[in-house]
Amino acid sequence: MFKNTLYFDNFPLSTISAYASRINDELESGEVGYYHLTDTSQILVNESLEFIKGKEHIKNIVLVGMGGSSCGVKALRDMLFDEKQNDRKLFILDNTSSHSFLEIIKQISLENSLFLITSKTGSTIEVISLFKLIIAHFNIKEVDFHKYFVFITDINSKLHKESENLGIKCFFIPNNVGGRFSILSAVGIVPLCFCGYNANSLLQGAKACFEDFFKHKKDELLQKAYHYCTHKNANINVLFSYSDAFKGFNEWYIQLIAESLGKKQGYKRIGLTPIALIGARDQHSFLQLIMDGPKNKTITFLKIKDSTKSLHIPNICFKFLDSLSNNVSLHDLLNAQCDATMHALIAENLSVDVIELEKLDAWHCGYLMYYYELFTSLCGIMLGINTYDQPGVEIGKLILKNLLEGVKKG
Amino acid sequence: MFKNTLYFDNFPLSTISAYASRINDELESGEVGYYHLTDTSQILVNESLEFIKGKEHIKNIVLVGMGGSSCGVKALRDMLFDEKQNDRKLFILDNTSSHSFLEIIKQISLENSLFLITSKTGSTIEVISLFKLIIAHFNIKEVDFHKYFVFITDINSKLHKESENLGIKCFFIPNNVGGRFSILSAVGIVPLCFCGYNANSLLQGAKACFEDFFKHKKDELLQKAYHYCTHKNANINVLFSYSDAFKGFNEWYIQLIAESLGKKQGYKRIGLTPIALIGARDQHSFLQLIMDGPKNKTITFLKIKDSTKSLHIPNICFKFLDSLSNNVSLHDLLNAQCDATMHALIAENLSVDVIELEKLDAWHCGYLMYYYELFTSLCGIMLGINTYDQPGVEIGKLILKNLLEGVKKG
Repeated sequence: MFKNTLYFDNFPLSTISAYASRINDELESGEVGYYHLTDTSQILVNESLEFIKGKEHIKNIVLVGMGGSSCGVKALRDMLFDEKQNDRKLFILDNTSSHSFLEIIKQISLENSLFLITSKTGSTIEVISLFKLIIAHFNIKEVDFHKYFVFITDINSKLHKESENLGIKCFFIPNNVGGRFSILSAVGIVPLCFCGYNANSLLQGAKACFEDFFKHKKDELLQKAYHYCTHKNANINVLFSYSDAFKGFNEWYIQLIAESLGKKQGYKRIGLTPIALIGARDQHSFLQLIMDGPKNKTITFLKIKDSTKSLHIPNICFKFLDSLSNNVSLHDLLNAQCDATMHALIAENLSVDVIELEKLDAWHCGYLMYYYELFTSLCGIMLGINTYDQPGVEIGKLILKNLLEGVKKG
Repeated sequence: MFKNTLYFDNFPLSTISAYASRINDELESGEVGYYHLTDTSQILVNESLEFIKGKEHIKNIVLVGMGGSSCGVKALRDMLFDEKQNDRKLFILDNTSSHSFLEIIKQISLENSLFLITSKTGSTIEVISLFKLIIAHFNIKEVDFHKYFVFITDINSKLHKESENLGIKCFFIPNNVGGRFSILSAVGIVPLCFCGYNANSLLQGAKACFEDFFKHKKDELLQKAYHYCTHKNANINVLFSYSDAFKGFNEWYIQLIAESLGKKQGYKRIGLTPIALIGARDQHSFLQLIMDGPKNKTITFLKIKDSTKSLHIPNICFKFLDSLSNNVSLHDLLNAQCDATMHALIAENLSVDVIELEKLDAWHCGYLMYYYELFTSLCGIMLGINTYDQPGVEIGKLILKNLLEGVKKG
């Protein structure tokens, strides 16, 4: 199913068990909301499916959201490319870029589109700006807003208040669920249900991870987090994902780790630096640095076992070209490249582990994403920081406000 | 035009001038081929245009190549999205992924497609495997290979020999031009000319950078390289590119820096670790770590001044939502976000510089890519390593060979 093998030494359980009890405390405190979404979001699946029922004319779902409001959905869209159960297209607008905006907008018509305006705080400047651009582009009248827009936000946010003012349907993110931990809240569940992905299976996968950790006391996560937090020379954590399908997941991983674990703590600056690669492609790019550069990196390989849907490399022989991969499936070649690279790094005595997914479906994605959320919480506890805030980005927002007021004055 | 502003202290010229003379020696030695491509590739532009002349039936160019054989072209395809002068589409196959392969293949028909099989060594296993998959998928007969395939490789490589055997047109990469420095060789020039990009302008931009550095002795590059190589605490170099159009360029940057500068030197391990972000998107992801995490990063901002083609955020006012960005162009908002972030990081006393492109055209892309190639060469000289080899990836290839032989035996 989901298998994580660590190629570095385990710590004695007595060393790490204190952290297990600390994360239990955090779980039971009820202050960190994402832990409980595997149960509480079941109802949201029904609510989402109920809302979209009978709206067969909607062929395009356009998600407008930055960071945590889009990363997770993008990850799942990329991973679950052959798991959709309806033919709705899912588009994601996650930057203030005219070209990207027009590229998406030109592919859709208003009448068969639904825009999900997602902002936890309800005041993300990029999201509000894109919302206005959509209104202007399609010249949507205020009385029709409810037909084309759905809001996803916190209760009592500006966006929530505006939804009541404008008569727009609003789905809510629990206040105690942070943006980057929100994939199993309305942020992820609503668009996934609208587009025919199996959200129940996603929740079940996440729940299986929850139970493996909290109930069955599987300790890979504790071992790995403790290794990462104490192996101070290796403060760069590389995720080497072997499939193009992990491109969005890589982005999600980077956001989760970087924004959660990069924090000031008094006069000290704490942080793990995430890097995410795609195999085999980046064997021709970043690998040389891992092999021969400073030993300041841990490496996690991520691979999919199932190769039943893979193409086969045909048995064509040429006079001069290599025949080594003839008769091998393309996916088996990819996995052999993963294994070869992994063994080469282990031989260099680097910190390596590997995550194997039996196959790439909603269940395994749910498990995988929850695994990394728990991993992040554990690291935060071990590093003694607040995993769930992001104070460092506020200063830039203040400067931006001043700059924009300057731009407008000309 | 192209402006690079450094927000860290300059070194006295006496400190860095020795390196200026060392790179002059490298240039004049003739051993490093990329320096001279700005002149020698002019002829290749004509050869490429000549080859494609009269082949108006070709509507799809499919580039098959890993690492240096595709990164640079992908970068330019992304950056020059509105600079094409014909309607040919450019597809890139750069991984051993069935899904990516089929996604591209299903969009094209054989009769109006031309496949560029690119491998410097002529024996890249992914490229050879994809070549065979294309033959099998379209059931192409050997007598027809010359109609659908073009090879790009080194003289006397296996691919070159096979081209002669099969009667396939072959363009050559100079032996002394490394893969990741090859964008201005046949690797880049041939597909760019085929697809109607302005390769001459690209070469001219690169030439302008060459002259600014070697003739006009502009010293930002020397200052920056010396700062990066001596500021040992900050061995992670972040490129923060403000536009979705830089996605491919970011990948190219990572390959260039990681593979060139991560090297063993006797018992020592040397290396700068590149990270590349997209603004404003990644302000909601990685920025928190830069602001509050360890001060082990330099940050280069990359922005485009010209906003004439940008959409305008309309002046729509809501009761609860913010109006701060109303009446501002989307691109001006993006640049204000860039400036705000930059000032926030400077205030934290981090090593910051900014590259401003007047606009995003072939000339500026040529300048930018050559700028980073020179930067890499300078760092290599300062670090005392061989910038142009990649010995660390060979071990994995040997292991792969053994694994594949095992797979085949079952």
